[in-house]
Parts: sequence; structure tokens; C-alpha cells
Amino acid sequence: MSKAPVLTPRAEDFPRWYQDLINKAELADNGPVRGTMVIRPYGYGLWERMQAEMDRRIKETGTQNAYFPLLIPQSYLTREADHVEGFAPELAVVTHGGGKELEEPAVVRPTSETIINEYFSKWVQSYRDLPLLINQWANVVRWELRPRLFLRTSEFLWQEGHTAHATYEEARDFAAHIQRNVYGDFLEHVLAVDFVSGRKTAKERFAGALNTLTLESMMGDGKALQMATSHELGQNFAKAFNTRYLSKDGVQEYVWQTSWGSTTRMIGALAMTHGDDNGLRIPPRLAHIQAVVLAIKGDDAVLAKVRELSDRLKAAGLRVHVDDRTDIPFGRRAVDWELKGVPVRIEIGPRDLAGGTAMLARRIPGGKEPVAIDSLVHVLPGTLEEDQALLLKQSRERRESRTTDVSTIDEAVEATSAGGWARIPWAVLGEDGEAKLAEHAVTVRCLVAEDGAVPDADDAPGNVAVVARAY
Amino acid sequence: MSKAPVLTPRAEDFPRWYQDLINKAELADNGPVRGTMVIRPYGYGLWERMQAEMDRRIKETGTQNAYFPLLIPQSYLTREADHVEGFAPELAVVTHGGGKELEEPAVVRPTSETIINEYFSKWVQSYRDLPLLINQWANVVRWELRPRLFLRTSEFLWQEGHTAHATYEEARDFAAHIQRNVYGDFLEHVLAVDFVSGRKTAKERFAGALNTLTLESMMGDGKALQMATSHELGQNFAKAFNTRYLSKDGVQEYVWQTSWGSTTRMIGALAMTHGDDNGLRIPPRLAHIQAVVLAIKGDDAVLAKVRELSDRLKAAGLRVHVDDRTDIPFGRRAVDWELKGVPVRIEIGPRDLAGGTAMLARRIPGGKEPVAIDSLVHVLPGTLEEDQALLLKQSRERRESRTTDVSTIDEAVEATSAGGWARIPWAVLGEDGEAKLAEHAVTVRCLVAEDGAVPDADDAPGNVAVVARAY
Repeated sequence: MSKAPVLTPRAEDFPRWYQDLINKAELADNGPVRGTMVIRPYGYGLWERMQAEMDRRIKETGTQNAYFPLLIPQSYLTREADHVEGFAPELAVVTHGGGKELEEPAVVRPTSETIINEYFSKWVQSYRDLPLLINQWANVVRWELRPRLFLRTSEFLWQEGHTAHATYEEARDFAAHIQRNVYGDFLEHVLAVDFVSGRKTAKERFAGALNTLTLESMMGDGKALQMATSHELGQNFAKAFNTRYLSKDGVQEYVWQTSWGSTTRMIGALAMTHGDDNGLRIPPRLAHIQAVVLAIKGDDAVLAKVRELSDRLKAAGLRVHVDDRTDIPFGRRAVDWELKGVPVRIEIGPRDLAGGTAMLARRIPGGKEPVAIDSLVHVLPGTLEEDQALLLKQSRERRESRTTDVSTIDEAVEATSAGGWARIPWAVLGEDGEAKLAEHAVTVRCLVAEDGAVPDADDAPGNVAVVARAY
Repeated sequence: MSKAPVLTPRAEDFPRWYQDLINKAELADNGPVRGTMVIRPYGYGLWERMQAEMDRRIKETGTQNAYFPLLIPQSYLTREADHVEGFAPELAVVTHGGGKELEEPAVVRPTSETIINEYFSKWVQSYRDLPLLINQWANVVRWELRPRLFLRTSEFLWQEGHTAHATYEEARDFAAHIQRNVYGDFLEHVLAVDFVSGRKTAKERFAGALNTLTLESMMGDGKALQMATSHELGQNFAKAFNTRYLSKDGVQEYVWQTSWGSTTRMIGALAMTHGDDNGLRIPPRLAHIQAVVLAIKGDDAVLAKVRELSDRLKAAGLRVHVDDRTDIPFGRRAVDWELKGVPVRIEIGPRDLAGGTAMLARRIPGGKEPVAIDSLVHVLPGTLEEDQALLLKQSRERRESRTTDVSTIDEAVEATSAGGWARIPWAVLGEDGEAKLAEHAVTVRCLVAEDGAVPDADDAPGNVAVVARAY
């Protein structure tokens, strides 16, 4: 008799598997207002670690954190024409405050370019005030008609960076720097999620930007997910908000700007990249619990050993959780930790104690074997680094094996329908081809240069379009 | 010829001094929607340090962070009668989302007891699920008609803790534990702000609570500011949201709850407690910049020494900022760091270099003296701890010297009008007296027991009311 699976298998129904997983691993619940979400402690613990790792990288670029208001006068959004066109359909509007109808409705920020430019225009006076490098960690609201937890929610958490520079080149280079050294570095070295880095086509650009850089990753079902974007805003917002500086030559010039963001969507990406039919697999460098030390029975000697081992591992710098809930059956707890994707589980029972060993269960490669308890403090750091590397390798191999080079639009539709990505010369595809792909729900995720670099222009010779179905 | 003061002197106009200070120290600006604020990088840096110190203490209690939605269905608020009565006048209401009028308006959270209870009622099934200890860092909106930066703003940032327990006693003890070991410990050991810890009278309680514990501090003008509160919610929200658990005896019981919060208002409190006529004075343990190393001139040898010293101090664990903006006059930069309240300023110029010395300016006690550059790494940690202790001492002495024991209501009015606090037996004051004081804009900040402890009941014998004008 085989047990019923804990989750709907991925091969059977991937979206259902995802929904089961988010629910059973206790990452999040649906909120009462359509499209909102409750991030539960285990899910929020992942977000806290993401924030810490990203925040460090953001600060290393010289960027400082600040906080701008949630509520933006409706009129601000209309000052940049493309921007309001892009965001108007998604706005939540506050019409009443303090028991009265407001003279001017306020929108709940969907992003903060407008309100931030209002202040940049006050703070920036001279070239000495540049570059101005600001980031905020905040919640934003974009009304979502087809919500899915983490991936598309009416409210999400994110960081949004906003910078002002003296020249076009400096702004362009800064956007690229963030893309590579904050987002790329974080995805590769912490999330262990492989990606393709490229530029968006005109159709897919941020509303109000000259250029949008993106990092696109392949999920377990072969679909694409946009992981983070970095925009060159040119002088569009500067002109709309009159953000100018006095140059060294004594001339009033508009600043050149960037904005860039990454969101709680990365939690969904993590689940869909590394998850398997038994649950999550959390990369060790991200995990807020890297190892769980589990008492099989509530025996005094076992509990003492579990605590002693946990203390030793913590002292060695590992993030460790003790599971001493011995009134809950051992099997149920083991399944729960598998679901939650904790990288290693160390199980200790009375029989193990006698031999000075524990069972070491490794979630990422799978498998379970006895190890000497005293060796764990030496062995685990290497084990976790191996597992970290394995996740990145599997993620990379998936993308490589499921990406097809094609030369016609029909082939691109075929390759993406089978659950993969296609690469097609942009000179062959073009905007007309992009529109045709859209009829099949296939989009251009990004343009990359022949050598894999991020192209300087949409029409640079040799540009290749990476196309896929996407979340 | 004496220079015009940088700030309006406190003795001349304290509210104006405060406003000048917040502006000139670049802590915050007014937002465009009435009562909202922009927290600038220097101000936000203080908040990040507050968050880190508080978050560590919150987690030490076993509490986990999570995140609940910003938008709450309007109907949730009405389920607890006192709660809706308290918050209805301050709500911001979203009536439109995604281009359509909503079927049910959503309120922007003014606090999250209601929405959190909706989920607690799903997550809590048995006594094994208790205690449930949750905190969130979030923004909230309470429409403010008389806004003042940090002290009363329509949007503010805060942490709100929400817990559910099996018994009344456990919930009561947990609320007291937070009050003492999170808030009290943080105020005393990090913010260096003296306080009186007590219980609120029925009139001043949180809307929906059985009891509210508070920490009250005296500002530079002798007024009181509520620093943080911790509420015993009893079973009020549990009954409104049907949050029940199966006890060990197999009986369905309502949980007992607490909630507790502290906000960006603490930044205002910091300014009004430690600030002087030259600006802020930031307690070293809080400061995100503990020492600024300042190059007086842009000489290569000076710049090299400034950087070398900064690196040595950083390596010793100090939070250091280099000021090498030698194109800005030295005097202007010195005034700016005084305004910003950085605890120590180390000034190095060509003449200092020759003697191997620097000028050490101490913001907290004041004064400036030459010190050997090589000794700074050994000297500074002790200097900073001395300064930390001095701020707490000054804060405590202010409260003690400006608090008067009185025995009549008239005396209480007189003492508080002169810019101080009064202590009056609660048995003398009572609710009638509380109403009379209110006519003079004087409120009961809290009740304390004769021995200074937090009383168990409003009417415990010997209770003393601490009364004051307040922010």
C-alpha cells in the first residue's frame, strides 16, 4: 500500500502543486481583500533573509535607505504620461480620510517614482548633490484580477531603488551595476537560481522608462519568471517634476535617473525553481533554518544531546532549530521539515545515542545516513556548501536543456508550448513576430547579445530574443 | 558680533526648535498628503538601528515576524464595538480598486488586531498551538488633523506584536514581559531615555483592551510622551473572531491575547529628550554613525590618514563615517555634524598630522581637545560608553527634578503648567479629577504603585497618578 502523496505531483498539475506547497509549507495564506496575502512566519523568515542579503549588497553600492509616504496625490501620477497609462488600471484609491471625503483622492503607491521625484527636485540643487542614491523597503498595491500567492498579489513587499545622476552614461552604468552586482550576485550566490540577464523590448518596458534590464529565470515547469528589473528612466520624470541641478559649468540641467526593484515574488520563484514533489528545498545560504536537530523520543538523554548538539552547531555559526515536539509523531514531523525544505535534518533517538551517531537526512540531494554526532560540526559547513552548489547546477541545467535555438516563429511557439524557452534572432522575430507570439501567450522575456551579454540597443546586430510563456 | 543661532533656542520656542531641528538635521520632511512624512536617510538610519535592536529583543521572547495585509475589510473593524468606536474617526478608506468601485470598502490598517484575529482563528486549534507569538514591522495610517513630524503623522512605521495564550495569567505576564524586557530594556540601554512604567486609566486605554501598560518619558520642555504600550486584550477579540482552542481537558476555550507596539515616534522622542540648542545628541549605542572622521583640508597626507584611521576604527567595531568633502567649508561641516548629533567628531588637518594628533570633539558632554591619533582606537569605546551613560543620567535627572508630589488637583494643574510632571494619589484624583485636569489639557499619563511598580489594578491602594501635559 503506497501512501497518498503530501502534495499533488508536479507532473500532474504544476499550478496545483504550487498552491499545495505554499499552503502546506506554511508560507502564506490568501488575505480577505481580493489578491492580498498573509505571509506566515516561515515564509516571512525567508523574506527577512532575502532582505538582509539584498540590503547589504544595495548599501555596498553607496545607496542609502529612506522612506516615502504610502499615499500619493492622484495628480502626481498623471504628470508622466506613459507612467499613468501603465498604472491607472491597477490603482487602489483612498477617497475618504478622517471621516470626510478628500478634496483630492490619494492613490496607494503602486511604485514611487512620482513622489520620490517631488522630493528629489527639492534635495538636488547642485552637481555636489549627485549622485543621489536612495532605496526603500516598502509595501505597494497593484490591483490584481488573477492573483496567485507571491507571484501576483494586490499588495506585495519589495525594495525600490531610485537614483539621480549628472549624466546619461552614469545612470545607464548604475542601472547595469545594480542588475549585475545586486540582483545577479544575489540570485547566483544566495538563491542559487540561474538566470538570463537581458534587456526588455519596447513592449515590455517599465511605464516611463527608456530601457528596462531584467533577470529571467526558468521555473520547474519550463515557464519564465521575471526576477528583478532595473530601469533607465532617462530624464522623463526629471522633466515632469523639474528635477534639475546646477552643473560645474553653471548651467541648469535635468538629472538622469534609474529605478530598480525586487519583490516577495522571489519567494514564489524559490519554490518553483527548487521545489520537488516532497516540498521546498531551501538553499543553505538563504535558509533561516539550515539544520533542524530532531529528538525522535522525549527521553531525557536524547533531549540533552539534541540541545547540546544544537548549541555546538550554533556556536559554529550555523542557523539551527531544535524540534523537541515529541508529542507529535516523528513521521509527521519529518514530513513537515521535508515540506519546509530545511537543508539538513539531524535525527537523534535512544538507539543512535548508544552508538554516538545520528541520522543525517539531506533534503537537497536526498538520502539519509548515519554519522558520528561529534563529526557534525566539522562536516556540516561543507555539506551545506555542496548542496548550495547543487541547486544552482540543477537550475542551470534545467534552463540549458530546455532552451531551444529556433529560426522561425512557428518553431518558437512549438518549443515554448512543450514547456521550455526558445531563442530566436530578434532580426527574424521583430515587433510583428512579438505580436504573433502574444497570440499564443508567449512573450519576449528579454533580448541578449550573441555572446550572452546585455545588448546596448534593441536593434544591435546579432541580438537574440529569449521567448517563453511566463508567470 | 555673535552669529545667529542655527536653531531657534529651546527656551524661546520649543515647538519651533523641534521643527527646525527635524528639518536641518535632515531627519524628515512633510509629505504631500496631509500628515504624511518622508523619512530622509539620516532619520531612516536611526530607525533601522532602532528596528535591529528591538527586533533582537522581540525575537528573544520567542516571537516570530510575519506580515498581514495593509487593506482590511471595513466590516472586520465593526466586530469589536470599542475598537471601531476608537478608530473610526481616523480611518483612511479605499473605495476604488482596479478602476472599479469596490463591493465592500477596505480600510488602510490603523492597527491589525482584527485581521490578525481572523487568521489566528484558523491557525489555533489546540493547546499545542499556544502560545502563538507574532510580530510585524509595518506602516499604518491614522488620519491626523494636527500633524507634527514623527510625533503625530497620518502614516507611521511601527512594530505591532500580537499574541494568543491559554490563560489570562499567561497573557498578562507576557504583556508585562514585553513592557519590561523589550521596551524598557531598549529605552534604558539603547535610547538612553528615562521613563516611568505604569498602567493607563480606563479613559486612556487602547480601544478594545482590558488594560494598557505604558512607558512615559519626559521631553526637554517637561511634557510627557508615550513611548510604547503593551495591551492585555482579554478575550474581547477572541470572542469577536471566534479564536478558540481545544484545551488539554478537551474543552473549547477562547484564547487570551495581548498586543503591543512602538513607532517612529521614538525618533521624535529621541530628538526632544537629548537635543540641545545646537542639534541632536544621538546615544552612541543607537547611532548609525558613532564617529565621523573629518578631513579639514583636501591634502593627500590628511586624506590618507583620515581613511587609515577610519579603517582602524571600523575594524575595532565602531560605526564610522569619513567626511572628506573638503570643497565645503570646514565650519559648515562641523555645524552640520553637531546638528546631526554624531557622538564624536575627529578632525584632522595638516598641522595635526605633524604632531600625530587630532582634535576630538565630543557632542554629548561638549568640548574639544587634542588626542594622539594612535590612541583613539583604545580610547573611543570607553568615551562612547561614558557619553551613553551621561545621556541617561541627564534624562533621569530632568524627570526627577521636574516632578512634584502634590495633594490637590489645583496643585497638579499648577505644577504641570510650569512645565513638569505632578504625582497625585489616585484616590484623591479619581475619574472626576481626571476630567477636571483634561480642561487644562493635563492627562493622567499612568498609574504607578507606591513603590514605583506597575499596579495590578486601577484602584489598588496607594496608586499614584503621574499627570502631565503630553504630546
